[in-house]
Formats: sequence, structure tokens, C-alpha cells
Amino acid sequence: MSDRAVLLLSCPDRRGIAAGVAEAILATGGNIVHAEQHIDSSSGRFFQRIDVEGASSDALERHMAPVAERFGMRCDVRDPARPARVAVLASRQPHCLYDLLGRWRAGELDAEIPVVISNHPDHAEFCDFMGVPYRHLPVTPDTKADQEAELASVLAAAEVDLVVLARYMQILSPELVGRYRDRIINIHHSFLPAFVGAKPYHQAHERGVKVIGVTAHYATEDLDEGPIIDQDVVRVSHRDEPEDLVRKGRDLETVVLARAVKAHLEHRILVTGRRTVVFG
Amino acid sequence: MSDRAVLLLSCPDRRGIAAGVAEAILATGGNIVHAEQHIDSSSGRFFQRIDVEGASSDALERHMAPVAERFGMRCDVRDPARPARVAVLASRQPHCLYDLLGRWRAGELDAEIPVVISNHPDHAEFCDFMGVPYRHLPVTPDTKADQEAELASVLAAAEVDLVVLARYMQILSPELVGRYRDRIINIHHSFLPAFVGAKPYHQAHERGVKVIGVTAHYATEDLDEGPIIDQDVVRVSHRDEPEDLVRKGRDLETVVLARAVKAHLEHRILVTGRRTVVFG
Amino acid sequence: MSDRAVLLLSCPDRRGIAAGVAEAILATGGNIVHAEQHIDSSSGRFFQRIDVEGASSDALERHMAPVAERFGMRCDVRDPARPARVAVLASRQPHCLYDLLGRWRAGELDAEIPVVISNHPDHAEFCDFMGVPYRHLPVTPDTKADQEAELASVLAAAEVDLVVLARYMQILSPELVGRYRDRIINIHHSFLPAFVGAKPYHQAHERGVKVIGVTAHYATEDLDEGPIIDQDVVRVSHRDEPEDLVRKGRDLETVVLARAVKAHLEHRILVTGRRTVVFG
Amino acid sequence: MSDRAVLLLSCPDRRGIAAGVAEAILATGGNIVHAEQHIDSSSGRFFQRIDVEGASSDALERHMAPVAERFGMRCDVRDPARPARVAVLASRQPHCLYDLLGRWRAGELDAEIPVVISNHPDHAEFCDFMGVPYRHLPVTPDTKADQEAELASVLAAAEVDLVVLARYMQILSPELVGRYRDRIINIHHSFLPAFVGAKPYHQAHERGVKVIGVTAHYATEDLDEGPIIDQDVVRVSHRDEPEDLVRKGRDLETVVLARAVKAHLEHRILVTGRRTVVFG
Repeated sequence: MSDRAVLLLSCPDRRGIAAGVAEAILATGGNIVHAEQHIDSSSGRFFQRIDVEGASSDALERHMAPVAERFGMRCDVRDPARPARVAVLASRQPHCLYDLLGRWRAGELDAEIPVVISNHPDHAEFCDFMGVPYRHLPVTPDTKADQEAELASVLAAAEVDLVVLARYMQILSPELVGRYRDRIINIHHSFLPAFVGAKPYHQAHERGVKVIGVTAHYATEDLDEGPIIDQDVVRVSHRDEPEDLVRKGRDLETVVLARAVKAHLEHRILVTGRRTVVFG
Repeated sequence: MSDRAVLLLSCPDRRGIAAGVAEAILATGGNIVHAEQHIDSSSGRFFQRIDVEGASSDALERHMAPVAERFGMRCDVRDPARPARVAVLASRQPHCLYDLLGRWRAGELDAEIPVVISNHPDHAEFCDFMGVPYRHLPVTPDTKADQEAELASVLAAAEVDLVVLARYMQILSPELVGRYRDRIINIHHSFLPAFVGAKPYHQAHERGVKVIGVTAHYATEDLDEGPIIDQDVVRVSHRDEPEDLVRKGRDLETVVLARAVKAHLEHRILVTGRRTVVFG
Repeated sequence: MSDRAVLLLSCPDRRGIAAGVAEAILATGGNIVHAEQHIDSSSGRFFQRIDVEGASSDALERHMAPVAERFGMRCDVRDPARPARVAVLASRQPHCLYDLLGRWRAGELDAEIPVVISNHPDHAEFCDFMGVPYRHLPVTPDTKADQEAELASVLAAAEVDLVVLARYMQILSPELVGRYRDRIINIHHSFLPAFVGAKPYHQAHERGVKVIGVTAHYATEDLDEGPIIDQDVVRVSHRDEPEDLVRKGRDLETVVLARAVKAHLEHRILVTGRRTVVFG
Repeated sequence: MSDRAVLLLSCPDRRGIAAGVAEAILATGGNIVHAEQHIDSSSGRFFQRIDVEGASSDALERHMAPVAERFGMRCDVRDPARPARVAVLASRQPHCLYDLLGRWRAGELDAEIPVVISNHPDHAEFCDFMGVPYRHLPVTPDTKADQEAELASVLAAAEVDLVVLARYMQILSPELVGRYRDRIINIHHSFLPAFVGAKPYHQAHERGVKVIGVTAHYATEDLDEGPIIDQDVVRVSHRDEPEDLVRKGRDLETVVLARAVKAHLEHRILVTGRRTVVFG
């Protein structure tokens, strides 16, 4: 256990929360290195992220318990020294998977990657090169339920904290999504809510847009409707054929997915209804 | 009549077009200052914009006629020395109107502005200050048809080449839109096709997007479905309330509408189906 | 006096600051609506901006005084209900001036504008239209000192809190700059520190850059060296002549200057050495 | 030999160039698929890039020879079916190298990569995995001249058309640079001409900029002074430590270097003095 912690707090707003929290932290002997706070005016809820040093997660949980009770607060205390366990799921396209593993190996993503899972065998050699276990779980329309059961058991066995859908082209069942609520990050290759569904770059070309985008979001039962974590765009022109949009989009997908995963791993995201608070 | 011209050409693609056109221009004694060309792979059509100096529009039309016939070409010869006549329509919000008139007075937009029309009296003093005639055409649900008839007659009397809907919040009838096909530019305050319809910034806030956008497009009978000329976006966060989105969007609206109007006035846009070719 | 306040705090970092501040605010009966905090790792200084409601500036100053003393803290308590008094200085170019007054009239900038000052007579009519007093203070190389003396006395008489150099092309003396330390905002038409000095767009064209930028900064004795508040850029290409860079740059200048002025007026900026902390 | 070609033309501008060129191409039986043209107003030079199908490079060279002579034109005829031979040079940092090889393997870059060269042994295994020969040429201050001689002989033996400095931290001699004039692409990790020299991200942090950038350029004898091919930027804030700038910069470096290399490989770049014409 380290002497650093990140607190993620949310509760109905009222007077005295900041003072109550600051006193509780002070009582642990910890120092607030960074704090950011937000009040959502439509729901009247208070959100806060606090970086503490000089106190253990245990001590913080103990001292925060009465504060949380007093304010009806959800209080997550995370130990930044304990890296999250992340499973990466991919289909045939390599760009997001390669990029994530590259960043991970370069030390950019503070995580363990106990398993990469794919419905295709293509990335076995690369994962081997990267030193990450690879599970090939093929799927056909007939074996979909079985494959997902196996997928679920691999995730469970690997004690996964976060599932990253790195262009994994299979739809997960509501049950599996529910089991990892707010812990499955998907990259959708359009600027949601524009162009939901299949082949968004082709839809975008057909419509003649001048900017295309991508969206990283938490997966929910309703496809393409989950809370958005990050989005970004790139300009296109009449010169760009659908395959150019696909290529330009790939660069966006890798960068935006990596940003979203990094924000999650650094405990910067709170979900509120269909929206996210992403602290900087 | 000046000794410069812009040619906008489109036809089915086949061998020899470029040579045929270049020879016709050479025969007029003109020099090609700039040329850009595009072949749309899905329709197989050829598009070209050519800047010529040293030849009159008359001479170019004469020499291009047989070329156009030979290739089944639509050939528009525009005289850049003859500024287009532009009507600007606005409702209560001033930002796009003020910005356009400011650019016009600074010499950025090569146009005459014979009239500004609004369903509100608010901008009369400003237009007076700018030296532009102002017509206040109030409208109620009951007088909508009459008001549009008057609007149409003002546009006709002003011999308008281009109509700019600078946040004009009234829907034009299909008849009026048809009369100015590809000559009405609207600014829609969302990143089309996301958030069609009313209050797009509020829709965007509700959905929790991380980027908002705006769209300049030619008006068609189907609202928000016309060919897109330009789009742009700005990042937003959980900190932004709907009114912040409105404010951030205003800056985008003025800039993107101005870019679209400028591209139209410089004869850079060709419409093909629902899409545009916008030469640089 | 309103029941809202903004606190801008800075001091050497140590344990207990957040708790001390939060308790002092709680003791006034106020509620923290928003708080953001930053520790600069190179200087080891703590910075915080706090939005309080339900407490007066007076009460906050009283309760914060012992906290400030204890931590060696600089504590500014600002009343957001008291709009700052802003002087806008411009030369011949109108775009930044027009834009700022337009935003001000649209309610975007919470300020009073007691005077616009220019070394040219050009904007008198526009300021009159906007209802803002206009002072024409012409200048020649021979009268520079006298003109600045008059300028200083106009600023003093107007009890100005902030001076905005909206493309004011005269260099202010170190004395005048020192009198309004961290309260003079300039817009420089390059991406500092690239292209310091005269005609930066022409320098940029000559160098063949593919992106141009602008910089809003606080004025200091060393020209173009002051703490940077905001910067932004736009892509350019070989097609852009110097005059195109000037035109594209104008749009950036207006937007970036307006953002910087707005951040200052909302008490979001703290200066530390040559750098700024700009809270979101 | 294929039946496609790209022509890159430059000459002093005068009447009749476009017609002369179009006729010569027509005479080969070829069709102009795409053409873009530019006249540089300061030098009065004409530049053109033409995509031809239905004619061989040989036929085009034969028919273009008299046109080139007549107009004093430099005429490069490139066969797009003949991929360029590219050497990638890297030091310890892997991101640009990994990204380029990843794109190359995904079919994004139309090239052969006969060799990767590094002064460190680190990337041998990765290149082996990618199926690209790896040459480790260690260097010390004492062996610099010898190492470069060996480097030059490896490049010569590999019959290299393009050298990509993918964060290769050794300075090449003027002789070697001269041998590959306009054929060495470097990625500089600042927004040139800001922050030339060492540790630009640290310089940028020190200066407190709000935007950082990177620059892809052709290497010349004068370090950091070569013709700029592409640049891009990313926003930063007071929250970003120098190591954050380094990390954010890495993403820019990979993308901008890849764009520049792709533009070069697609024969889109013409150099004119210190500037480039990059056709879209």
C-alpha cells in the first residue's frame, strides 16, 4: 500500500462538503496535491476528484466514512500505486490494439494487461512479441452465446478492472455490459450521435460532411448511447474517398481511445446519467 | 468587363477534357493563373475551376462553347470584377449579421449588399450606420405566407444573386428555396447530421458531447439536408452549461458562415447531388 | 455588495492549506460552488481559485486574513457583481475593437468600458454608435512622450482596472506598463516566441510555415516577453499570400484576445513569474 | 512499367504552359485524372502536379521533353507503381519508428524499407518482427566521422530514395545532407521557428506557452532551417509538466512525420527556396 490516493466523490450539493472533506483528509496527515470540483447545475450534484499524498487509502477510507455518511456521498478511494488490470478486445483491425500496447510498453498507461482477446488469430504474434497473453475466441453467428460465455469467464479469471473494446466488432450482451458497468470503454468511429450504426465513414462520405469524428464512450445496453468520455475530429474534403476517411479516422481512433483509457486509469472520470465529468 | 474570369466546369469524365479546355483558353489569349480539378469517383464526373487572366468573359464564353458541347459540359464563366449582389436575412441574434457586414466593410467579401431583411426591427440602426438598406418584415403565424411573398418581392427587386440566412429563424417555402437553388446559404448551429431540429446546443448538452459544431450549407426543400459547404467544431466539457455552448457556438457560427459565403463569392463551390466540391 | 465572491489564492505549498481555507469559508456561511487548485512543481507554489456563494467579499476577507497570514498567502477576494472598468486601446485596424464591443454589448463580457482610446480618429463614429466614449490621442515620433502622459491621465481619470491593447500599435513606456502590472492584455499577431517584432505574418510567409498563430499576453517591459494567457493557430498553405495570412490571422486575433479578456474578467488568471495559471 | 504516372513540373510562369502540357499528355493517349497548379507570386514560378492514367512514364517523358525545353521547365515523371526505397533512422525513442513501420505494414505507405538504422541496439527485435533489416551503427564523439561513413555506405548499398529521420538524434554532415537534397525528412519537436535547438519541450514549458507544436521538414545544412513540409499543434496548460509536453508531443510527432512521409511518397511536394508547395 502506497502513501498516495485519489478520491472520487459525488453527492447532492450542500454547504460544508469541501470543509468536511478537507478536514477528514487533514486528520489522516495527508496533503491535497490537486483537487478539482464540479457542481452539475441540472442535477444539483457535487463531484470532486482529490489527489492526496502522505496518507494511505486505508486511513482515508476510515476518515472519510463519517463524512460520506453525513453528506450521502459516494466515495471511491483509489490507490494509484495499484495498477488496474485491463483486458483489450480487438477484431481484425490492429491499429488501436497496437497503439495501446505500444503506449503501455512505453510506460504511458499505468496498468497491467493480463490478456488480449480477439475473435481473430491475427494478433497472436504481436502480443507474444509484446509479452501479453493472447486468447483467440473465434465466433460465428451460431456460436455467439458460447463465445461470450467463454469471454466472460476469461475476463473473470483474469480479474479484470477495465475492458477496452479496441475496435472489437462484436456486440456484447446486456448481461456482460451490466457486469462491467462504467468499466467497458468502446471507440465508435463516428462523431456520435451522428452516424450511429454500421459503416459510419461511408455514411459520412455519402452525406458529404467536411469534418469526421470519433467517440470514446462507456458501453451500455443501448448501443452507441453510452456516456461519452472523449471525442475528436479531423477535416475532410471532396477529395477524400471513403477509404481516405477510414484512414484518417484510424489516427483519430487510436488517439481518442488512448486518451479515454488514460483518463479512466488516472481516476479522472465520474459518470452521471448519460454524461461524464472528466477532470483535467 | 474585366480581363479576368473564373470558369466552373463539370461534365462526365473522359479523355481530352483538360487539353480541350486549355486550348480554348489559349485561343482567347488568356493565361491560366490557377486551376484545380477533381474527378468524383462515385459519379464519374469531372469538375474544374480555372482562374484566367488576359481574356474577357465574353471571349471565354465564345471559345468554350464548342468545348462544352463536345463534352456535355456545364460551363459557368464568372467575371470576378462584377461583385455578387447579396441579401442578408437575420432574426433577433446579431452576431452573424454584424460579422458579415464588418467583413464586408473591411473589404474581405467582394459583394454588394443591396438589402438586409429581418423579421425584427432590432438591427435598423446598425445597418444604417453601416450604410446598408434595412427592411423590417415582421411575421406572425397568421401572416407567414404574406410576409414571404413580400420577402420574395424585395429579393427580386434587389436583383439578388445570393441569399445568406444569418441565423434567420424562419423556414422558407419550397417555392422560394427552389427559385434560389444553390444560392441560399444557411448556418445551422449543430454538426449536421447530429442534432437536427430545434435547440441543438441544448440537445448536445443533454447528450453530454465533448465537441460541438456548426454547419454552413445550401438550403434545400428538406430542412438541414442541403449540401454541406463547411463545418467546424470546438471542444466543450462537463463545465459548460447550455448557455456556454450557445456562446461558444456563436463564435463558430460567425466564422464558418463567413468562410462559406466567401467561398461562394469567389466561385469556389460546385454542387453535385447532396455534396459540394469546394476548391481551395 | 453581493453575496458571491471569487478568491484567488497563492502561497508556498504545505499541508493543511485546503482545510484551512475551506473552514474559513464555512465560517462565513458561504458555500463553495467551484474550486480548482494547482501546485506548480518547479516553484513549489500552491494556487487556488474558489467560487463562493452565500458570503460577502467583506466577510470572506475578514475570515481569510488569519489563514493568509498563517500560510504566507496572497489572497485576492473579488466581487463578481462589481464589473471591472476596462479601457480599450486601438490603432487603425478595427477588428479586435469591434469584436470586443460587440461581445460587450451582447453581454458576453462582464465589464464597464469607460473609454476607448486611439491614435487615429477612425473609430469615433462606431464607438458613438455603441455608446462608448472615444478619445482620439494622435501621436507622432516627436509627441510620443506627451501623448503617453495624456493617455496615462485618461486611464487614471477613468479609474481603469484593465487595459486591453486591441492591436494598439504604439509601444508603452516601462513606467506605464509597471503601473498596470498584470493588468494590460496585448494581442500579438504571431505564435510567440516565433516571429517576435514587426510584420510577423510576412516573416511567417517568408519562412514557409504551415501553421500560423497568435498570442494574448500580459504586457511587460520586455516587448513580446510577457506571461502568455492564450494562444491559438490556423493552418495555412503555399496558396496563402502574406495578405491571406493577415486575413486568417485577424479571425484568430479577435477570438484569442476575447478569450483572454474574458478569462481575466472572470478572475481565472494568476501570474507566476513568466507563466500564467489559467483556471478553466 | 505501369500505365500511370505523376508529373511534377516547375518553371517560370508564362502564357500557354497549361495548354502545352495538356496537349503533350493527350498525345501519349493518357488521361489527366487529377491536376493541381500553383503560381508563386513572389518568385513568379509555375508549379503543377498531374496524375495521368493510360500512359507510361516513358511515353510521357518523350512527349514532355520538347514542352520542358520550350518553357525552361523542370519535369519529373514518377511511376507510382514503383515504390520508393526508404531508410528509417532512429535513436533510442521508438514512437516514430514503430508508427511508420506499423503504417507501412498496414499498407498506408507505398514504399519498400530496405533498412532501419540506429545508433542504439534497442529496436532490433521489433524490426525483426516486422521483417525489416536492422543495422546497429553505434556512435561516440570519437567515432562520429567513421560512423557516418558507414551510414552513408549502408544507404548507398540499399539504393535509398528517401531517408526518414524518425527522431534520429545525430546531426548529419553537410556532405551527406547534400547527397540527399530534398530527400531527407526530419521531425523536429517544436513549432519552428520557435524553440530551435535542444530540449524544445522544456524551453516551451519554461516560456509558459499554451500550445506546443512539431515540424516535419527537409534537412538542410542549416539545422532546423530546412523547407517545412507540415506542422501541427496541441493545446497545453499550466497543468502540464515538461514530461506531459514530451508525451503530448510524441503523438504529434508520429502523426506529422507520417503525413510528411506520405506526401513525399505520393509525389505531392515541390521545394522552392526555403518553402514547399504541398499539393492536396
